[in-house]
Amino acid sequence: MKKGLTIVFTGDGKGKTTASLGIALRASGQGKKVLLVQFIKNFKDYGELKFVKKFPQTNIEIKSFGQGYVGILGDKKPKEVHIKAAKDGLEFAKKRINSDKYFMIILDEINVALNLKLLKVEEIERLIKSKPKNLHLILTGRNAPKKIIQHADLVTEMKEIKHPFKKGILAQEGVEF
Amino acid sequence: MKKGLTIVFTGDGKGKTTASLGIALRASGQGKKVLLVQFIKNFKDYGELKFVKKFPQTNIEIKSFGQGYVGILGDKKPKEVHIKAAKDGLEFAKKRINSDKYFMIILDEINVALNLKLLKVEEIERLIKSKPKNLHLILTGRNAPKKIIQHADLVTEMKEIKHPFKKGILAQEGVEF
Repeated sequence: MKKGLTIVFTGDGKGKTTASLGIALRASGQGKKVLLVQFIKNFKDYGELKFVKKFPQTNIEIKSFGQGYVGILGDKKPKEVHIKAAKDGLEFAKKRINSDKYFMIILDEINVALNLKLLKVEEIERLIKSKPKNLHLILTGRNAPKKIIQHADLVTEMKEIKHPFKKGILAQEGVEF
Repeated sequence: MKKGLTIVFTGDGKGKTTASLGIALRASGQGKKVLLVQFIKNFKDYGELKFVKKFPQTNIEIKSFGQGYVGILGDKKPKEVHIKAAKDGLEFAKKRINSDKYFMIILDEINVALNLKLLKVEEIERLIKSKPKNLHLILTGRNAPKKIIQHADLVTEMKEIKHPFKKGILAQEGVEF
């Protein structure tokens, strides 16, 4: 039995987005087309953004809809701005999910958007249930809602055991971004 | 404070090798050079192997030393064959670690090689302590030895919450390999 999997990477540890990027790399090596839709994040210097610009031949695409972290790190945007961005991201993702053009679609940080109630869990449940049979769908972000986990085929919790920021080491180009 | 990090991805869940591949992709986007040294694994159809052949311009390299899973899945090779392969992999990795050519070196499944006693934990501890200051070193594989975790800056445990093989779904090209 083969089918398009619904995969969730959640938890407080490093490795959720990067695991999805690694699967994208693996799929690319197998000649498949992958799309990553970024929710929440709006930082422009991510290595993955530079990667897809430099190497379009890898057939990995990224489309960003994030307006940055919500309500923290100096965010003063009205919540409506974040809600609109998340809704736009979801609309875009839905069209691509039903386009039959992709082997895999990654909804990066969508769990965070769900936790912040920028999107409704029911909408994502419907999306998972109605997606094309062969499409692989990956959802990342900490605190994945229980209902999302129930609908997933494969779930990994990335658990933080040790993190260098706690030792005063800064985020580093090529590793953290 | 910036420094080359020692990162460990361990645990029984999916996402250890793929998280390291994702960091490799991110580093590649930032214009850095990455090497992944494969221990244990000797399967030829991994998407990542095809990826590095197809896209050498991404500056991600993989070198395989594995002789396959040890003592399981029909393995009948004498243990010496596995020990030699692991030692050869480690010697190769050491040279590359000290070559000053790489931004990041990934020792994929080395934790498994340590658990199977193909390599000595003390050797890897020395390697971590003596590596060039700016080099990022990633060690993957389940059951990372405690001493390796002690020496690492960043450790994530990938915890299996749900896995489709248990539902009878087969490993799939572009996802599991």
